[in-house]
Amino acid sequence: MGLIVQKFGGTSVGSVNKILNVAACVKEERERGNNVVVVVSAMGKSTDTLVGLAKEISPKPNKRDMDMLLSTGEQVTISLLSMALNKLGMDAVSFTGWQAGIVTEPVHGNARITKMNTDAIKTQLTAGKVVIVAGFQGITEDGEITTLGRGGSDTTAVALAAALKADKCDIYTDVTGVFTTDPRYVKDARKLLSVSYDEMLELANLGAGVLHPRAVEFAKNYQVRLEVRSSIEKIEGTVIEGEAAMEQNLVVRGVAFEDEITRVTVLGLTNSLTSLSTIFTTLAQNNINVDIIIQSTTETGTANLSFSIHTNDWVETLNVLENNKGVLGYEQLDAENKLAKVSIVGSGMISNPGVAAKMFEVLANNNIQIKMVSTSEIKVSAVVEEKNMLKAVEALHKAFGLGNN
Amino acid sequence: MGLIVQKFGGTSVGSVNKILNVAACVKEERERGNNVVVVVSAMGKSTDTLVGLAKEISPKPNKRDMDMLLSTGEQVTISLLSMALNKLGMDAVSFTGWQAGIVTEPVHGNARITKMNTDAIKTQLTAGKVVIVAGFQGITEDGEITTLGRGGSDTTAVALAAALKADKCDIYTDVTGVFTTDPRYVKDARKLLSVSYDEMLELANLGAGVLHPRAVEFAKNYQVRLEVRSSIEKIEGTVIEGEAAMEQNLVVRGVAFEDEITRVTVLGLTNSLTSLSTIFTTLAQNNINVDIIIQSTTETGTANLSFSIHTNDWVETLNVLENNKGVLGYEQLDAENKLAKVSIVGSGMISNPGVAAKMFEVLANNNIQIKMVSTSEIKVSAVVEEKNMLKAVEALHKAFGLGNN
Repeated sequence: MGLIVQKFGGTSVGSVNKILNVAACVKEERERGNNVVVVVSAMGKSTDTLVGLAKEISPKPNKRDMDMLLSTGEQVTISLLSMALNKLGMDAVSFTGWQAGIVTEPVHGNARITKMNTDAIKTQLTAGKVVIVAGFQGITEDGEITTLGRGGSDTTAVALAAALKADKCDIYTDVTGVFTTDPRYVKDARKLLSVSYDEMLELANLGAGVLHPRAVEFAKNYQVRLEVRSSIEKIEGTVIEGEAAMEQNLVVRGVAFEDEITRVTVLGLTNSLTSLSTIFTTLAQNNINVDIIIQSTTETGTANLSFSIHTNDWVETLNVLENNKGVLGYEQLDAENKLAKVSIVGSGMISNPGVAAKMFEVLANNNIQIKMVSTSEIKVSAVVEEKNMLKAVEALHKAFGLGNN
Repeated sequence: MGLIVQKFGGTSVGSVNKILNVAACVKEERERGNNVVVVVSAMGKSTDTLVGLAKEISPKPNKRDMDMLLSTGEQVTISLLSMALNKLGMDAVSFTGWQAGIVTEPVHGNARITKMNTDAIKTQLTAGKVVIVAGFQGITEDGEITTLGRGGSDTTAVALAAALKADKCDIYTDVTGVFTTDPRYVKDARKLLSVSYDEMLELANLGAGVLHPRAVEFAKNYQVRLEVRSSIEKIEGTVIEGEAAMEQNLVVRGVAFEDEITRVTVLGLTNSLTSLSTIFTTLAQNNINVDIIIQSTTETGTANLSFSIHTNDWVETLNVLENNKGVLGYEQLDAENKLAKVSIVGSGMISNPGVAAKMFEVLANNNIQIKMVSTSEIKVSAVVEEKNMLKAVEALHKAFGLGNN
């Protein structure tokens, strides 16, 4: 008898009918002879409703109270799912985060798990019960309710699978798996049967954000075997594990992309050594995420700096830079909007030096200008004009042999 | 510096605006120089919504899951109230039932409090914070979430006031206090400035059920000074304490009444000794509450039995009795609907033997037939026809000098 951790997100538990569907799904797994731990999120839009109530009271509610408020969402789901399982004749027990022994650091809104006390869960599993755990939430050593931030329920599921040494952690979603690129935009996109943890980390933005990078990292660290699969269609999903089976010996496994990128350029930095760290520290303090960074030194000894941000952060970024012009010491600011980032991802790249060159060639052949480039061991990203994004994705998807044909 | 426990029910926290109003009320108390512990219920109809979800899944959801589900209601309120207090510049901390150290027996749906671990609350009070506690809920020694059943938030408030040795426990409601009779029906009804615990127990049904008898009993046992007062009008309410100040030396303090009473009569009981206990045990097992019971023995040695029930239970009561006819051994069943119960209440009755006689006289003078009578040390109840109920209440209210004139 194996042990499977199943995770169902907010969309999968968005109504009473969907919860009954989840219960049926749990029952099937149980009838395959496995013990089951189920992790669930809050029902559909219920988190938004709670956030709405808080915002009506205060534009900046304190984080401890937000955790107190939001953690009720999953608590509603676990009790309803337990009732649904009872209705199907199954013995089940529901646990909040603290009852499940999920201990976190003393931080509100975005706590990391520090310890798992799984005795209570093990006792119930031994008693033959399905254990239902509220995702996204934990408790500090001092008994404070915390939440795990974005991707929290994925993280809860993976952490439980690791602590319980589960055979597998199934992430049920509304897509059927991880694709070579987003199937909503590229018809030729193909579902991958297996990807490695590292590839999944880079591909995390593909397939409608099926899995949070943080959960993938956790799974990688504890070697938890993950599968992303559909809660509606009963078909094989995508397995995420240590070494992905090399399908067709493909070097590139997927093409990721995102739009609404802005490139900010700072010209004539005089004190490039100190001003670089000052700029990015200041931006970080203002919660502005910087992605690609490129620096070049001119002949006169000053430096030029370019970096990419989400377009939403554009106005604030310029404000921050202008307000700190005196400290930073630059000549001119420039920004370009309506850009996009296209990335190719694959573990096989490490031993394949020609991959980046091929990418640039494909883009050049399609008359797509590259504005910025960034590379990691298993990823090459190019910033291009937004209007060229899908053309670039389709061309790369085809050139690296990812399609169905 | 004193310590005040304030309790606000579901109607008083039914919307964001009402929660802001509660926060203002708490702030006023704090500014009078007192430490404050606030107990709140779930927002307005939110409990009904949760019950609705559960019923959609299962007609008989298990009680552990119902507690898990319903306890989220107060948790939402405490976090929102804490945000509202922050907004007013107050330092506050919200506690669920288990965080507040409210320990109950291991029973779901209707648990009794067994222990109060108030250390966490005391620490926060010492730190100068307003402490907000979720009413209606607790935790077992084994870490199971429980709820306290009807009147649960009142009970939480009183239990906290007792454990913390608070100077007073203020029960805020949508009425201004406890009245001599229900002001919605009797114009002449007058607010009482003070009643004793025992009187309050008997009057509990007056004034739109402002206070649950269970909380009153708790307050009596621990000598907690209670005040029932309005969350909207800033006026004196009704104080409930050991010995009520004898206003105008009144023997009778209030007139309570309820309609939809049915009288069931069982004629010709042969085995009256055993069948009496069998009847009431069987009815209790079917969750039928019996109020007044009258038994008489006939000349032939058989017994006749009459008892009153809520009319809602009428059909089931007859079914139970008919299904058990063989065991019970009676000749005939009879039932009379459209009855009502009118009661006079007052501690002064104990030393005033003529009170019951005066009540019967008043009813007789008004041509109101008495169907059943029951007396306790501080109450006399008469069952009359429903159509005569208000006439009886008004006549008694006047005859015992309870009105404003």
